[in-house]
Amino acid sequence: MENKQIIFKGYIDRAPQITDMELKITNISTSELVETMEDGAVMVKNLYLSCDPYMRGRMRDFHASYIPPFRPDSVMEGFGVSRVLHSKNEVFKCGDVVTGMTGWEEYSVIHNTAQLRKIEQDPDSGNDPIPLSYYVGLLGMPGFTAYAGFYEVCSPKTGDSVYVSAASGAVGQLVGQLAKLHGCYVVGSAGTSHKVDLLKNKLGYDDAFNYKTEPDLNAALRRYFPGGIDIYFENVGGPMLDAVLLNMAIHGRIAVCGMVSQHGMSSWQGIHNLQTLIAKRVRMQGFLQSDYLHLFPRFLEDVAAYYMQGKIVYIENMNEGLESAPAAFVALFSGGNVGKQIVCVATE
Amino acid sequence: MENKQIIFKGYIDRAPQITDMELKITNISTSELVETMEDGAVMVKNLYLSCDPYMRGRMRDFHASYIPPFRPDSVMEGFGVSRVLHSKNEVFKCGDVVTGMTGWEEYSVIHNTAQLRKIEQDPDSGNDPIPLSYYVGLLGMPGFTAYAGFYEVCSPKTGDSVYVSAASGAVGQLVGQLAKLHGCYVVGSAGTSHKVDLLKNKLGYDDAFNYKTEPDLNAALRRYFPGGIDIYFENVGGPMLDAVLLNMAIHGRIAVCGMVSQHGMSSWQGIHNLQTLIAKRVRMQGFLQSDYLHLFPRFLEDVAAYYMQGKIVYIENMNEGLESAPAAFVALFSGGNVGKQIVCVATE
Repeated sequence: MENKQIIFKGYIDRAPQITDMELKITNISTSELVETMEDGAVMVKNLYLSCDPYMRGRMRDFHASYIPPFRPDSVMEGFGVSRVLHSKNEVFKCGDVVTGMTGWEEYSVIHNTAQLRKIEQDPDSGNDPIPLSYYVGLLGMPGFTAYAGFYEVCSPKTGDSVYVSAASGAVGQLVGQLAKLHGCYVVGSAGTSHKVDLLKNKLGYDDAFNYKTEPDLNAALRRYFPGGIDIYFENVGGPMLDAVLLNMAIHGRIAVCGMVSQHGMSSWQGIHNLQTLIAKRVRMQGFLQSDYLHLFPRFLEDVAAYYMQGKIVYIENMNEGLESAPAAFVALFSGGNVGKQIVCVATE
Repeated sequence: MENKQIIFKGYIDRAPQITDMELKITNISTSELVETMEDGAVMVKNLYLSCDPYMRGRMRDFHASYIPPFRPDSVMEGFGVSRVLHSKNEVFKCGDVVTGMTGWEEYSVIHNTAQLRKIEQDPDSGNDPIPLSYYVGLLGMPGFTAYAGFYEVCSPKTGDSVYVSAASGAVGQLVGQLAKLHGCYVVGSAGTSHKVDLLKNKLGYDDAFNYKTEPDLNAALRRYFPGGIDIYFENVGGPMLDAVLLNMAIHGRIAVCGMVSQHGMSSWQGIHNLQTLIAKRVRMQGFLQSDYLHLFPRFLEDVAAYYMQGKIVYIENMNEGLESAPAAFVALFSGGNVGKQIVCVATE
């Protein structure tokens, strides 16, 4: 049986390019694979793979981070939704749909099953089921990043003025909608007029702007936030962060989630306006969703309910076929995708 | 009667120089002054004046800060210790010693007496009295900045590794001593070998180094904090902050108090390593002591007790005579003083 795989070619110190990965076709024998599987392992067919910015950090030869780098000449890995084909694990049965870390390939053997989660769908609920791909987006790591970052790091209050950069992205689109549900005034920015339109007309933002066509980010933020920004959900870094620092309200909070504009830089751009942290008494806090996993069950319940009640929506950018994964991943860093980037490897 | 005054000449956009201020001698008539004093005002003789870095912000033509700028061609003002000569206020009697905002001159009329505080000294306590100048240092705004910043912003825990820059300064010297009393490991940096010696041998720091003779601040911090920095009390900004960001421990806290190295810059230096906030989940928080004034009485009680019990010491740099005030103030920005900078105008 053929197994298509996406291989990571080697460490880089710049923005990822398609040629940093390559497609490889291996022949595998299912029976041999299953024989050599350790107790506790499962063999899966991958259905949906998630492209996330943090993965770029795994392409550097840097071993002191919170997650180890990819191994050169090995299969890429990331969050995925998969169907169990063979199981040597009591928790997962053949036919189960699971989500967790898997390989960028058609078939994977997953040994670290402690991080796998079974997706339970209730066919008798009378509702349309939640799309399986949402379990690596709205109901997966990006959604949980938005949830933990907004509720646990931003200390939101009703009436707060909230600014979200990369606002239509996998994380940003949920942050904005949670903030609206919390009674905040919410403005987002993105890099195309199409995304700005989505923010205003589909994702419920009070207002939105295209940062690429604003000649002066400081002036733009002053226009949208004449009373200052209470909460900034920081996804991009660079000149946008500097402009935000000039526009924070007293006792404002900045949740530092990502600085995606800096991913391509071998040396990071300087931030010049940190002194405003003092006069405005601003709290700026970096966070990782993994510190809040005790809240994951509540998150799943809350956000799935919001979705089923039609209170939130989620926009995906779905690429078809494993072959499209390198291009889909690279597009994260140029803003080429709209919404959460997913690769569909197979539908069942 | 003569009244010597230090006049602020006009707004600047660089590090302060002695020539930005000038000495002026005015003739005043006490009886006329007292006659024109509004109800509630007091006339004082100034004893000690405090030189503080925040005053540099009042020399800019910038009106949106938490404190208004000085007025050109008017008397400089700042925290001081003064003796009441005439009072039209029920709270303050002739002869009382008070502390609060006063003028950089020999005699001042203070109208805003709400911000004045009477210094109570108990001659019957059997202890040596606390030096009056300490009421604008150890027991004044700088001491309270250290107290509120350390306890309320840094979230200290016993055993934490604490790093203090400008560690022998008005604020830093108390931060280090409070951290030691809290059971922390404390390292400070300063800009001369004499200050480093004071940190180690008088102020009780576990270790200290001269940042000016370190070729690589990142390497120096790695040496002193092999397990990372839990708490950084940020007094200087610039390249030091960038080096600290590379050495923070997971869940570390940075209290942003001042960025004195940036005071002379018309454009601030860029900080390049903020991305480490994410992987290390660091909280960086700007603060002003004025947000914590509800804690001031407890601070006075705690720190005065520590001092009387010999648990903490305080180093002052005392200049004699109002004439010396401009030079004393300017020295704050070049590191020319050792400890809290005071100008003694008169002793009684």
